[in-house]
Amino acid sequence: MDVITLGESMLRLSPPGHERLAQAVTLEMRFGGAESNVAVALARLGLKTAWLSRLPDNPLGQRLIAELRSHGVDTSGVRMVAGERLGTYFIEFGSPPRPNRVVYDRANSAMSRMGVADVAFDLIAQARWLHLSGITPALGESCRELTLAAATFARNKQIPVSFDINYRALLWSPQQAGQTLEPILQQCDVIFSAHRDAQNLFGAATNAEQAARELRARFGCKHMVLTIGEDGAIACTPEAMSQQAAFHVANPIDRIGAGDAFDAGYIAAQLRGLPLDAALRFGNAMSALKMTVPGDLALISPTEIEQMLAGSKLASVR
Amino acid sequence: MDVITLGESMLRLSPPGHERLAQAVTLEMRFGGAESNVAVALARLGLKTAWLSRLPDNPLGQRLIAELRSHGVDTSGVRMVAGERLGTYFIEFGSPPRPNRVVYDRANSAMSRMGVADVAFDLIAQARWLHLSGITPALGESCRELTLAAATFARNKQIPVSFDINYRALLWSPQQAGQTLEPILQQCDVIFSAHRDAQNLFGAATNAEQAARELRARFGCKHMVLTIGEDGAIACTPEAMSQQAAFHVANPIDRIGAGDAFDAGYIAAQLRGLPLDAALRFGNAMSALKMTVPGDLALISPTEIEQMLAGSKLASVR
Amino acid sequence: MDVITLGESMLRLSPPGHERLAQAVTLEMRFGGAESNVAVALARLGLKTAWLSRLPDNPLGQRLIAELRSHGVDTSGVRMVAGERLGTYFIEFGSPPRPNRVVYDRANSAMSRMGVADVAFDLIAQARWLHLSGITPALGESCRELTLAAATFARNKQIPVSFDINYRALLWSPQQAGQTLEPILQQCDVIFSAHRDAQNLFGAATNAEQAARELRARFGCKHMVLTIGEDGAIACTPEAMSQQAAFHVANPIDRIGAGDAFDAGYIAAQLRGLPLDAALRFGNAMSALKMTVPGDLALISPTEIEQMLAGSKLASVR
Amino acid sequence: MDVITLGESMLRLSPPGHERLAQAVTLEMRFGGAESNVAVALARLGLKTAWLSRLPDNPLGQRLIAELRSHGVDTSGVRMVAGERLGTYFIEFGSPPRPNRVVYDRANSAMSRMGVADVAFDLIAQARWLHLSGITPALGESCRELTLAAATFARNKQIPVSFDINYRALLWSPQQAGQTLEPILQQCDVIFSAHRDAQNLFGAATNAEQAARELRARFGCKHMVLTIGEDGAIACTPEAMSQQAAFHVANPIDRIGAGDAFDAGYIAAQLRGLPLDAALRFGNAMSALKMTVPGDLALISPTEIEQMLAGSKLASVR
Amino acid sequence: MDVITLGESMLRLSPPGHERLAQAVTLEMRFGGAESNVAVALARLGLKTAWLSRLPDNPLGQRLIAELRSHGVDTSGVRMVAGERLGTYFIEFGSPPRPNRVVYDRANSAMSRMGVADVAFDLIAQARWLHLSGITPALGESCRELTLAAATFARNKQIPVSFDINYRALLWSPQQAGQTLEPILQQCDVIFSAHRDAQNLFGAATNAEQAARELRARFGCKHMVLTIGEDGAIACTPEAMSQQAAFHVANPIDRIGAGDAFDAGYIAAQLRGLPLDAALRFGNAMSALKMTVPGDLALISPTEIEQMLAGSKLASVR
Amino acid sequence: MDVITLGESMLRLSPPGHERLAQAVTLEMRFGGAESNVAVALARLGLKTAWLSRLPDNPLGQRLIAELRSHGVDTSGVRMVAGERLGTYFIEFGSPPRPNRVVYDRANSAMSRMGVADVAFDLIAQARWLHLSGITPALGESCRELTLAAATFARNKQIPVSFDINYRALLWSPQQAGQTLEPILQQCDVIFSAHRDAQNLFGAATNAEQAARELRARFGCKHMVLTIGEDGAIACTPEAMSQQAAFHVANPIDRIGAGDAFDAGYIAAQLRGLPLDAALRFGNAMSALKMTVPGDLALISPTEIEQMLAGSKLASVR
Repeated sequence: MDVITLGESMLRLSPPGHERLAQAVTLEMRFGGAESNVAVALARLGLKTAWLSRLPDNPLGQRLIAELRSHGVDTSGVRMVAGERLGTYFIEFGSPPRPNRVVYDRANSAMSRMGVADVAFDLIAQARWLHLSGITPALGESCRELTLAAATFARNKQIPVSFDINYRALLWSPQQAGQTLEPILQQCDVIFSAHRDAQNLFGAATNAEQAARELRARFGCKHMVLTIGEDGAIACTPEAMSQQAAFHVANPIDRIGAGDAFDAGYIAAQLRGLPLDAALRFGNAMSALKMTVPGDLALISPTEIEQMLAGSKLASVR
Repeated sequence: MDVITLGESMLRLSPPGHERLAQAVTLEMRFGGAESNVAVALARLGLKTAWLSRLPDNPLGQRLIAELRSHGVDTSGVRMVAGERLGTYFIEFGSPPRPNRVVYDRANSAMSRMGVADVAFDLIAQARWLHLSGITPALGESCRELTLAAATFARNKQIPVSFDINYRALLWSPQQAGQTLEPILQQCDVIFSAHRDAQNLFGAATNAEQAARELRARFGCKHMVLTIGEDGAIACTPEAMSQQAAFHVANPIDRIGAGDAFDAGYIAAQLRGLPLDAALRFGNAMSALKMTVPGDLALISPTEIEQMLAGSKLASVR
Repeated sequence: MDVITLGESMLRLSPPGHERLAQAVTLEMRFGGAESNVAVALARLGLKTAWLSRLPDNPLGQRLIAELRSHGVDTSGVRMVAGERLGTYFIEFGSPPRPNRVVYDRANSAMSRMGVADVAFDLIAQARWLHLSGITPALGESCRELTLAAATFARNKQIPVSFDINYRALLWSPQQAGQTLEPILQQCDVIFSAHRDAQNLFGAATNAEQAARELRARFGCKHMVLTIGEDGAIACTPEAMSQQAAFHVANPIDRIGAGDAFDAGYIAAQLRGLPLDAALRFGNAMSALKMTVPGDLALISPTEIEQMLAGSKLASVR
Repeated sequence: MDVITLGESMLRLSPPGHERLAQAVTLEMRFGGAESNVAVALARLGLKTAWLSRLPDNPLGQRLIAELRSHGVDTSGVRMVAGERLGTYFIEFGSPPRPNRVVYDRANSAMSRMGVADVAFDLIAQARWLHLSGITPALGESCRELTLAAATFARNKQIPVSFDINYRALLWSPQQAGQTLEPILQQCDVIFSAHRDAQNLFGAATNAEQAARELRARFGCKHMVLTIGEDGAIACTPEAMSQQAAFHVANPIDRIGAGDAFDAGYIAAQLRGLPLDAALRFGNAMSALKMTVPGDLALISPTEIEQMLAGSKLASVR
Repeated sequence: MDVITLGESMLRLSPPGHERLAQAVTLEMRFGGAESNVAVALARLGLKTAWLSRLPDNPLGQRLIAELRSHGVDTSGVRMVAGERLGTYFIEFGSPPRPNRVVYDRANSAMSRMGVADVAFDLIAQARWLHLSGITPALGESCRELTLAAATFARNKQIPVSFDINYRALLWSPQQAGQTLEPILQQCDVIFSAHRDAQNLFGAATNAEQAARELRARFGCKHMVLTIGEDGAIACTPEAMSQQAAFHVANPIDRIGAGDAFDAGYIAAQLRGLPLDAALRFGNAMSALKMTVPGDLALISPTEIEQMLAGSKLASVR
Repeated sequence: MDVITLGESMLRLSPPGHERLAQAVTLEMRFGGAESNVAVALARLGLKTAWLSRLPDNPLGQRLIAELRSHGVDTSGVRMVAGERLGTYFIEFGSPPRPNRVVYDRANSAMSRMGVADVAFDLIAQARWLHLSGITPALGESCRELTLAAATFARNKQIPVSFDINYRALLWSPQQAGQTLEPILQQCDVIFSAHRDAQNLFGAATNAEQAARELRARFGCKHMVLTIGEDGAIACTPEAMSQQAAFHVANPIDRIGAGDAFDAGYIAAQLRGLPLDAALRFGNAMSALKMTVPGDLALISPTEIEQMLAGSKLASVR
């Protein structure tokens, strides 16, 4: 196993095109969640990945399993439980100046009741990398505990841990989030965050470079990686600092999951031993291509990334 | 106001055609619930109706309101609350020998937390008829209380109360249901039940006529109406007894809501002062036509019912 | 040119599946009309056909032309006029006991204003057969005139004329229809009618055989052909009489155009010189297969008809 | 009742996406008309609105009623008549440099035959505002009369009247329009027009400010409001003049109804007593958001407008 | 590994509903093939299964892999090759009397060029059961060889081999098929065939019982299983003979794959050690339920089979 | 006959919107090929056109015929053959920076086996213009021969021949293409090429003007026309040289077929005797409008081209 991730994945229901919920009569049914998105993106890049979670043992939970399995993600460590529900979210796709609108219906999901006892530590022990995110601790007390337990377990086994802060304003306040995440982040090797979230949660500097440097020191991690919207991303290690511009996406089809695709690209680069700027460019390319694909999932092949990083500009090949 | 109904209405999500959730990528989005279905059916028959409930004040709750309003149902008495959820159910349409399959995700809905204080008694006071069902008391303690309160209030105001037992096996046991419903049924004038449910909950006789007679006596109601599947329906009053055969539906498109359509037809007939067999035939016609319409709602016009009751057999008119 | 037909074709808009107009948000866009349906059915059977009409020279009229042309029908004789409208009808597909429902919006169509001067008599002169129907004279005075003129022109040229009575209750009364059609029918060689319409318009006998015999004598035609629903069809010539049972269609997909398909089969049989029972069976087979195809058009190949008439019962070939 | 509007609403049929009528096989079915669009936009902003018109009492007219009712518009004053037709238009959505293409099929609609006797003056008498448009007088003589009658009636009751000139080149010439509208405009308090139309119909100045000033004086109205495309809108009252830039819409989804949304925003602002620039910005925000929503209707909530006017730039909230 | 299957799976493209290719503008994209259908059906019943084949390494081949993987089938033994094509078939769904129509475009597929060297014998060695079919030898000489090689290999390892004759008239003649399959069948333990095919290929008796007895003796297999359409299936072993009636399917949604589902049920029963009539009833239940599911795949759960075999008759559960 | 074209047309299957094959469950079914695209574009501009090819006589080949016929293209010279296949391609529509992706499945198509004997030279002899392309010679030896034969035949009859080089990198190398096409190009009067292809195949100059001049001299043609992407197109004749800028297409819907539309515009201009810059502008306008229409086909009317060339900027007309 190359990479194992742990977190919640949800049923995602969206009106087609730019319709609003106020007028739709059909909904597109997809599935997604930050950590399973990372697992899928890495699997399609050719890595062996697994995902840990807790799901209802009903047609919806089984369908989510099937979706992930279709992309090659190992789901043998997912805990299936009867009589619970799958977290759900509705998303209306806006078009500027109308923002996307998310309606969460995720309270009391099977995942929100996951506890340390549900974690397949034996699978984590066999992985080369563990990826977590800041959404899990927001789901409840037991989830907070298991996130810390998983990070600590991996660190003790000398398995690198990456962590995406992924702040969700609809789930908790910046204060709660900052306070809860701080001890977990102390156990992590690679930390991803939107620069804006880092400012809200940890009072990071408005200068991204300075922010990255200070946060890396504060959490004692090897890589502090900040994404800065159209300005791309910046990474800081004890030895180096690099910033790489984002690729331009003229007409984004679906932005959801772009950050997860970035994480996947950056992690893949680490596992291949690429230098810092190559890792950022890999992440940026994954993020840009993701935005052109409907759904949460980065259905991108290694060849497509290579061609993009090689600067190919073809409109079509035939 | 002619008829007021009170109950839960849900988001209904179904794969198109005969697809299973295991393979669908779009879901048809409709809305339905026993009591709102009755209100819609009556509104389309030309009666003034209103529906009382408790809904989340979000795009899903608002959409449900819009749906009901489009059919002419008054929703001014619905309580809209922030931060809650809309009950949801998924339905796969089978084809014999594969049954329809329902997956409920309705726990903790806004309606399940409705209490007596949320009921617009002033609207009930202005109605000529109140319709309730046995689903509401199954949603929780506060819902049980408000159902009893509403029935009692109407009786005190001499407003006739109809009640459909609508037993839901996924919500409670026959024992719980029978015990809970008994005191409520004592306050009702017209009671509808599937004969089978009456047997399970109240130990009714296997002979439908006998069952109707005994239950009417037991609950002290004016009309005890039992539906008996393909065998139609039977009604018993202190003065009379009538059984009418069901209309044949060769290839039902969507059976959900057929019972509610029956109730609406029977109630409409009562308000028009029709005799017992006409009322049963009105209900049977509504039920049969409903089964030919996709969705929970009986989108049937008075003319269509008249033509059917008059025996028209045309395949198409042009 | 083998067969030329003349009449109105319309935009046909229908909700998908069994939805009602009260709930649909998309409409299927097709095109159809009795005489163009006959032309298409014959073209797909391999005959050279043309259709005469009058259409608006706008995207809808052009689209109708394209549809017919795609099936091989010659439309060079259609009169295209600016600033007029295409007749339109909406059809809801019911399911027994709910009938199909047609909403006509066909008044003031370009076709309804066609006159004798618009008819391409030179094309008729080159055909081996002319087909007309009783819908055209119902569209207005000028249409009545041109129908008579076309039939008379063909008879004078010794071109056989077939005529389907096609009574439309939403357009005129049986009395008006019967009176108007009588002189036209005197000019025709092959007359098709539903037995029921023949009773309503011409007081035909309830016994189909007797009706066919009497009507043939009354109109002086060579073939009087009556369709009798599930009982098939009966044909009477001066020399012979034959009745053939309909093929069973368990679950009709779309009945519209089945009568036109019957006409096409019967006409094709005449042009091939087949005997009377073969002609009826050809018509019955066309009608039955048409009912399995969505839309007005009988998209049936000669091979399919042959296999059906040869008694093939395969569920699928592979 | 806050606002009452009067006018024609039509069945709108459009090929999906950017398809042309020449290739489409399904059509999206929506409904819209300038004045009903204003009523819906205002109703969704929380105002009590009603719409007056004349419709066929068939499934299409009833469906239009249901659509408007779903958004909360009172349709009790609409005159339903048997045997008439609903105006229809087809719209192909282009993409620059290909323009949208509208094919009208609206002649002889039920609304075009509305007369003064069909107007529910009693409802107008109870409203705080009346909104009319220049499309109605273009529909025929009786419609011209009733527009003038309605405006005069409201003025006599001291109910403010707004009027959108809404010039339709496919219905009449600038000369006819200018001449017909002049006496009606004399009865109005708030006049909306595209600057370009004002130039064509009334020879307004090419300088928008000058045009607004002169037209206000000419018609004797309180507010003369001109929209100037990407340049936003300008308003002139006896006391003030204000111009506000349009909000940028990078990729408009559906421009139809944007002007009506502007009117609704401006009217809502008047009823709230907002100053001139706030009213224009409200209108501009409504117009911009409308362009991101498929269909004629401005399905925009008060919160969304507030967030936009407050300068929120979020791509999505979650 | 419980069961391993080997064969061709294809891209399946079908017009929606009952549309014909002559009118469709979209095609439903699914995947299916006799042996992969068996693997999927067994996987969904809870068995560990794998499928062996040869596929193009392009988005279509990868999509097929993803589909199978989603259902839990192990595809690690599939040989992916660049520059080849995926076999494709188009299917029009008829409605009686119109048969389904298949258009094959399967020549020169990657699978048709599979050879013995492409077979993952190591995976077969680990399985408890091998399933093959008579389609593979029809694909070409190398496929004929590998089918024999696989069957012989398994027999030598004492792994039971099942074989479905699956005669395809569009691929070869009964004579070619009979002659080619005879030596392969000698290596098999369980042989499935339609009774009709057994008559055509091997001159089996018209009496099904006699045919089963004689064929079992001729091929020296343990189980000779014949399906007899509506009459169910018959199985003959050295010790016993059993016939079980088919379950009635009033309105089959999609018959493709029903035979494969039967095989899967029978094989599952063998692996559970069930008696002969239970095995036939299991197969019959799988076949009947499959016909209610769109697509080739038997998406049926163990619970659903149990309920059906237990005689449940519910129309829906809620 | 004005223009006759000869070449391959294919079944084109594409996921809806921006979906990838990895996630699609339906495919849009269209048809297209360079030379049939030119024929359709010219037919819709009002010219009489025909197309020559070789097709399987099955529902797919017949459907392609129907599509072309619907647009008015004469297909009487197409050779229909049993037992062969229709070339197919799958196209995923990207969005920058993700390119469109084409998966060809066109080997062994019926067209690839066309030979000189299949060409309807009698139809070519009646045409005013012949159009060919460099795709045909890439399909195989017999296709190379017939392309040369057709060009030579036309030249001998003094029928102008246009030829679009249309280099396809997935079919052959630049070297093969250059060498094969050189002798054919010697027979042509009007040669179209992307400037980039001319550089790759014939070592043309990077300066487009110089390239056009040199290539014209090399091939001895009357018009050498180079397209230069966003920079428009350049044409060189013995007497003149002209370059015209492309029209801006902000958001191309479907670029496939834009080059063919350009060719059609240029050819139409030649047949109308327009000067060089008018011909280029006609071609550029056709190309730009094509990019706004889904599918390969340029469904553009003469009026639309005129309005565009006249500089109309309307967003919609109504």
